[in-house]
Amino acid sequence: MNRVPLEQKVLSENDRIAAELRKRFQKEGVLCLNLISSPGSGKTSLLECTLESLPRSQRVAVLTGDIQTDNDAARLKRFGFPVKQITTGGTCHLDARMVERHLADWPVSNIDLLFIENVGNLVCPSSYDLGEAAKIVVLSVTEGEDKPVKYPAIFLKSELLILNKIDLLPYVPFDMHVAVENARRVHPGMEVLKVSCLTGNGLHDWLNWLNRRRRAIRPVETEAVT
Amino acid sequence: MNRVPLEQKVLSENDRIAAELRKRFQKEGVLCLNLISSPGSGKTSLLECTLESLPRSQRVAVLTGDIQTDNDAARLKRFGFPVKQITTGGTCHLDARMVERHLADWPVSNIDLLFIENVGNLVCPSSYDLGEAAKIVVLSVTEGEDKPVKYPAIFLKSELLILNKIDLLPYVPFDMHVAVENARRVHPGMEVLKVSCLTGNGLHDWLNWLNRRRRAIRPVETEAVT
Repeated sequence: MNRVPLEQKVLSENDRIAAELRKRFQKEGVLCLNLISSPGSGKTSLLECTLESLPRSQRVAVLTGDIQTDNDAARLKRFGFPVKQITTGGTCHLDARMVERHLADWPVSNIDLLFIENVGNLVCPSSYDLGEAAKIVVLSVTEGEDKPVKYPAIFLKSELLILNKIDLLPYVPFDMHVAVENARRVHPGMEVLKVSCLTGNGLHDWLNWLNRRRRAIRPVETEAVT
Repeated sequence: MNRVPLEQKVLSENDRIAAELRKRFQKEGVLCLNLISSPGSGKTSLLECTLESLPRSQRVAVLTGDIQTDNDAARLKRFGFPVKQITTGGTCHLDARMVERHLADWPVSNIDLLFIENVGNLVCPSSYDLGEAAKIVVLSVTEGEDKPVKYPAIFLKSELLILNKIDLLPYVPFDMHVAVENARRVHPGMEVLKVSCLTGNGLHDWLNWLNRRRRAIRPVETEAVT
């Protein structure tokens, strides 16, 4: 059965919408970040820590994707920033059309930093551009250091690797050095941060990374805020 | 874009091949189990413990799926049973055709127990019947107790839930009671086993489950072996 041409058509339609989103984000000075990981790697917890540490005055928003439930939106709304759940109802990834639709009644000009938390899946989301400035892949140390070589696409396409749950390092067979080496074998020079949302370790580096990335988008305004 | 009819065509073609495989497995008395989980939940480790504890005289074989690398096959071959790697090269799940192809030069009549380790993905593999007698979903306690309600399809379709890495329970925020409740909300009466491949806890229950399931397929022969 010839499945490829239709997939290509779907992907090129997605790319078209993503390109429009990217143009809008660039025009309005929005830093859009697409967070991708396996289920349970801690994307939502990372966003919780992040939102908790950002001043309410900052113009931050979150779109959070899941197959079912709006649990994650409920968790993230507690911090006072605008949050919307995208429930895909079975689809294994977010696509640009879903993002476009959920932004329809959000004036993008009011947002400086938009987090998109993808569906928990280390494979399919890597094929769908959402118009983001960068993809970020989150890997929990419980998942094993071999994941970058087994799921290379997402490690290749992501600007940053966040090695999460480092508080569990004493209890799991995980070789940090090999994990980073594997990631950089797939994606030479890939940036890597090591984080624990439970202890707060490494969060400072992550917030610094965010600030650097935001300044690159809005050199004047963000400098004035920080 | 109308994507559904083609997906249905692919799935019904898959179902046709899966039905043939199932008929062959039933005729030859093979118990085929399809293991599904997120990346890094410990499917390969569970198979390592399992193969290690089975007498070499038993007719057990493994097909192990991954996007890239044959790491898992290398890990599993150490135990002396026949093991084959299915490298999908990007596809996010195994399908019945891949299983059929990789069984082509394996006489199914020589196998009593066939493990299929699917690609690490909690979403897509649930749509692809591989002719298995049962799907088994593995969930690591590090992934959070909400996964059954967020990814209901695979929990609904699996006969057994293995809660893995229970040695990590003291270090992670995971409510076992809520996890089991969530699984049974999606799949009433679902069987649940709690296992740690690191400490060996719960492995006895898993091996008992396997034996019970094997006896149901080959009442006489398996009884004679055990």
